[in-house]
Order: sequence, then C-alpha cells, then structure tokens
Amino acid sequence: MRATLMYAAGDVRVEDVADPKIHQPTDAVVRIVLSCVCGSDLWPYKSLPATDEPRRMGHEFLGVVEETGSQVRGLKAGDVVVAPFVYSDNTCAYCREGLQTSCVHGGQWGVGDVDGGQGQAARVPYADGTLVRLPVGEDSELLPDLLTLSDVLCTGYHAALTAGVAPGDSVTVIGDGAVGLAGVISAKLLGAEQIILMGRHQVRTDLGRDFGATDVVADRGEEGVARVKELTGGEGTRRVLECVGLKDAVVQSFGVVRDGGTVSRVGAPQFTDVPFGFDDFLRNITLTGGVAPARAYIEELMPHVLDGSIRPGRVFDRTLGLEDVADGYRAMNDREALKALIRP
Amino acid sequence: MRATLMYAAGDVRVEDVADPKIHQPTDAVVRIVLSCVCGSDLWPYKSLPATDEPRRMGHEFLGVVEETGSQVRGLKAGDVVVAPFVYSDNTCAYCREGLQTSCVHGGQWGVGDVDGGQGQAARVPYADGTLVRLPVGEDSELLPDLLTLSDVLCTGYHAALTAGVAPGDSVTVIGDGAVGLAGVISAKLLGAEQIILMGRHQVRTDLGRDFGATDVVADRGEEGVARVKELTGGEGTRRVLECVGLKDAVVQSFGVVRDGGTVSRVGAPQFTDVPFGFDDFLRNITLTGGVAPARAYIEELMPHVLDGSIRPGRVFDRTLGLEDVADGYRAMNDREALKALIRP
Repeated sequence: MRATLMYAAGDVRVEDVADPKIHQPTDAVVRIVLSCVCGSDLWPYKSLPATDEPRRMGHEFLGVVEETGSQVRGLKAGDVVVAPFVYSDNTCAYCREGLQTSCVHGGQWGVGDVDGGQGQAARVPYADGTLVRLPVGEDSELLPDLLTLSDVLCTGYHAALTAGVAPGDSVTVIGDGAVGLAGVISAKLLGAEQIILMGRHQVRTDLGRDFGATDVVADRGEEGVARVKELTGGEGTRRVLECVGLKDAVVQSFGVVRDGGTVSRVGAPQFTDVPFGFDDFLRNITLTGGVAPARAYIEELMPHVLDGSIRPGRVFDRTLGLEDVADGYRAMNDREALKALIRP
Repeated sequence: MRATLMYAAGDVRVEDVADPKIHQPTDAVVRIVLSCVCGSDLWPYKSLPATDEPRRMGHEFLGVVEETGSQVRGLKAGDVVVAPFVYSDNTCAYCREGLQTSCVHGGQWGVGDVDGGQGQAARVPYADGTLVRLPVGEDSELLPDLLTLSDVLCTGYHAALTAGVAPGDSVTVIGDGAVGLAGVISAKLLGAEQIILMGRHQVRTDLGRDFGATDVVADRGEEGVARVKELTGGEGTRRVLECVGLKDAVVQSFGVVRDGGTVSRVGAPQFTDVPFGFDDFLRNITLTGGVAPARAYIEELMPHVLDGSIRPGRVFDRTLGLEDVADGYRAMNDREALKALIRP
C-alpha cells in the first residue's frame, strides 16, 4: 500500500510500504477513508534531522474495518470506525479512569511496526479498545466532522474540561489553529459565557466567532494581555486554554488568567522549563492539561457532531489526495491552510 | 513596644518601635499572646542584603483585642483572636470565593505601616475581615495548636485540598518541616489511605507517623522516587504535596506522582522556572497550589483543634521569649528546632 513517510524537515514522501496484516488476535485492519495533517506533524516538519529510517506519519484517521483478529468482539468487517490518536486497550486501570494516553498497552501510530494514519490502511492494535464505531456510511457528509473526534476536537475538549470550564465561566483561548478553534467549540459546549480568542489570522478568528468566541484579541504579549484585562474588568479570565505549545503562549496564559484560575495546556510543549515562579504562586494559578485522552471523549462528543449542533470539520480548509500530502504539510507550514484533509 | 526586625541575613534584633494605634475605623489593635517563626522567615534569614531599613518580621500570631476602630462590628476588646498570615477585607469578590490572599484590600504583615507578628502588639487592618475569634481564654492550653491556624496548618490543608485529596487516596508529602507535617495531618483529615512522608530527620518523620503518615521515605532524588514507586505498585501516588519550595523538590514531585495526578506546591518557590516539559505533558500531570488563603480555612479546621482530634501544635519544639527570638531563627536555620514558638 501507499503511505506517508518523513525523511527530514520539509521532506515528506508517499511511498510503497508493506500491506497491513493481522499480527495479534486483538488487531484489526482498517482501510482508511479520511485522514489529515496535525499541527503537531509540523514540529518534525520544521526540525527532523535527515534520516535513513523515515518516520511513518499520521495519527488521525477514520475508515472501514476490513479484517479482525480472532479475539476482536465488538467490530466486524464493514464497520465504519474512527481511531483516536493513540491506541489503547481500554481495559487497564488508566483507561478505566479515562486516561487512555497512559494505557499500559497503548502506544503511538507510526512507531515500531504500527502503521501511521496518513496511508491507505492501518493495522490497529487492541481494536476493541481503540476503535469507535460510527453510525454512518462511508459516504456520509459528516465524515470530516467525525474525523475531528480522532484528535483535534477531543484535544480542544480536554483543554476546556481540565481547565474546569463551567456554565457562566470566562475563558481565554490562546491560538487560532485547529486545536484553539476546537477549544472555542468545547468551551461553548461546556457553557462558557465569555470566550476570548487570541489569534491574528482573521479567516481563522472569524471561524472562531462562528464557533462561539465572543471576543477576538489579535494583539500578543503585553498588549494582548492588557486587552484581555480590559475585556474582563481588569481581572483576566478564570480559565485559559493554551493551544499553541510555545513558551510565549504559556507566559501569555499566565498573564491573562485571573487569580485562582486555571491554565490548561494542550499544545505539545516545545520547551522544557515553564516560567512559573513566585508571582504566579502568590496568585494561586494552576497549570493542568496534557496530551488528550481522545478515546475518553469520543462517545460523549459524537452526538453533538451527528446532530449537526457543532461543525468542527469546518477547520479543514484544504482537501488533498494521498499522493499530494506533502503539499498539505507545506500549505499548513506556510499558514496557507488551517488543516489539510487527506482522501487516500 | 518591642518588635522583631531583620537587618540582614543572620541579623535579627528586637528593638523599640512605635506602639500600634488605630489608623482606620476598620482597624483593631491586638496584644500578641503567641507568635512563631515560619520556615519562610528563613529565606531572608539566609539571603537578605544588609539594609538600613530593616524588615518588620512575623506573620503568625494570636492575641487579645485591645481596641477597635469605630466601624469594627464583630469584635470587641478582650476577644481572643487568631490572625491569618495575610490580612484581607473578607468581602471582596476574591475573598468571597475563598481566595483571601488575592484580596483587593489585603496585604502582608510587616510591610509599609503594618506591624509584623513577632512583636508585643499589632495594628490589624480590616479587623472584621481578618481576625477570627477563638472560643478559649488567653490561658488555654490549646493556644499553640490554635496558633497553627494562622499559617502552617492552613498551608498544609491548602496543599491537600488543592491536590484533590479524597477518601481512599494515595498521597506523597515532600518535606518533613512544619508545613509538610501539617500536610500529613490534612491528608489524613481528608481521608487519604496511604500517606508517604519524604524526609530524613527522624524526630520529624516520627512525628509525621503520629500525625498519620503510613510510610516514611528518607531517600531523596532518584532513589527516593524509586522507593515511592515500590510502595505504590510502580505507579506513584495520585496526589503529591510539595512542602519545601526548592526546585529539586518539584522535580521529585513529578517523579513520584502517578500519571494523571496532581502536584500541589505550597512551599514558597525559591526559583522561577519549573522543569515541566513534554514528558510530564504526556503524563497529564497538574501543578497547582500556591500561597494558602488561610482565612478561608480557619473556621473549618478550628473544631478539629478544639476537640483535640488533631494536635498540630506539636510542631513547636522550642519556646522562647520575644527578646530571644534571634535564637529561634538560628535554631531553626541550623535545623536544631522544627518550629519556634514565641511568647512576647
């Protein structure tokens, strides 16, 4: 089959790889119908040193079950399914608590002998635990919306949920990328009254307004913080969703959060130290979040997608065939595209 | 009156200062019956540059109301009262939420024209909001226990509460100082089942066992982390109370916390950057805590002190007159004494 490989920063190729087969009785093989490029794929796209052992790329996909191992009970060939961005057994203690990202048997797509999601098919470990059946056909117009259950919508939701967003709350969302926009959707779902979106790309922030942002702040740094303070009676918001992953965004988060408030970070941190010292200690700021256990949220969020009350698939503003995936990376990296959908 | 002043690291003196008087109609003047030296007083004791404008020291005290301003409603001369370690109006939005440390009118003892607590008396701003009446006489044997409501018990409680300690939980307490020991008391109050105290001073960890610690780990760093993992089936504890304030203690906290768990820090941080990067992000670790709004907890904790079910005053292992307060600083700094009680 054909699949996406990254050989170095800026060097993405589609090549022939081995067809996926059942290795374990708990595996399934899924023919991929839709995949996409993640903002986190851009970190290696900017920085991966050249290698002769290219990375298999992609961790967001939905598709059709082609074959199941002998111990798979809940799925059968022909089922339309979505895969969360890590696989998990969904039975261990962590999974039962809703922390499937710490599953004792779990792991990442594209690592070891596990396929990536930007390809024609994938072997899915722990298929019963990992995959969630979608009650639609593979020709459904909702598929792009449903694909966001794989990562971006659940990541935004994880940010809002761990930040403690509750009805009536004030929330700042930092970052107008796809995760930030999913954060806006999620903050609204959880009842936030004021949702301030910080971002400077008007097409994206306009989409953010459609999704529920009540205010948009294009300024960054101290000016941006001052503007959020103005919008919140001088105090900042109780909840801040940090959807970027850069140190400046974390600093900005601490600037806009109200005393006693919570910053949740879901942007994969591109730094090791958090500037979080005595001043923030005096203000009782909490820093939470982390990699989203998407699997925990899929059933909860799916009804909102199915009934059309949220349309997270609007973050896809470019559609490409698999052979053109490299152009999707380029367009996202050049900020020409918000998020690229791939139809293998 | 006589009061404690710090002129430089290691240079603590008791001198004559102006007698406190009512400045504002919301003030009270309190004759101090008991005070003490805080672990946080040792930071300037180690590092304060020499100054001609010495600091007024002390922020933990209880005493007897001598005089009240014309707008003070809830207190009268003769009342025995305890003061939390910051003053606050207890009516602003932050105070009503239980975050009196962010009170819009609040402030610290010993700053500006506000007296410190290590003296014979103090003017108390916003007396109705700040002071809590104690239902005992000034000769009560419970006074040392009740004095801990001023700071150390409430600080340990803040750690346990913000860490989310709930019945049946596993908790690690890092630090066997007075705050760490108060953290043990608090974790037990909140129903923790396993309480691992990390500390290497046996007299203190023995007291920790009396307070409810189920295990003591004397090792630090990687060995200490490995030992806690052994005690918790390889996973670490769900809750960690960081009661030291040094970077190594924070690193140790992340080492012993279970995936998805919470570290609460109440040791005043002596550093600006927290090493809290991608690995902890993948584990969904939360960092919370901060300076304790002691005022929020006094009424809640007082009954446990009054009925003798907890004895937090056992952290005082040395008693000094005010004129000898410098020796209390020295003894605590040399780790001869755990916490010094001062009887002016």
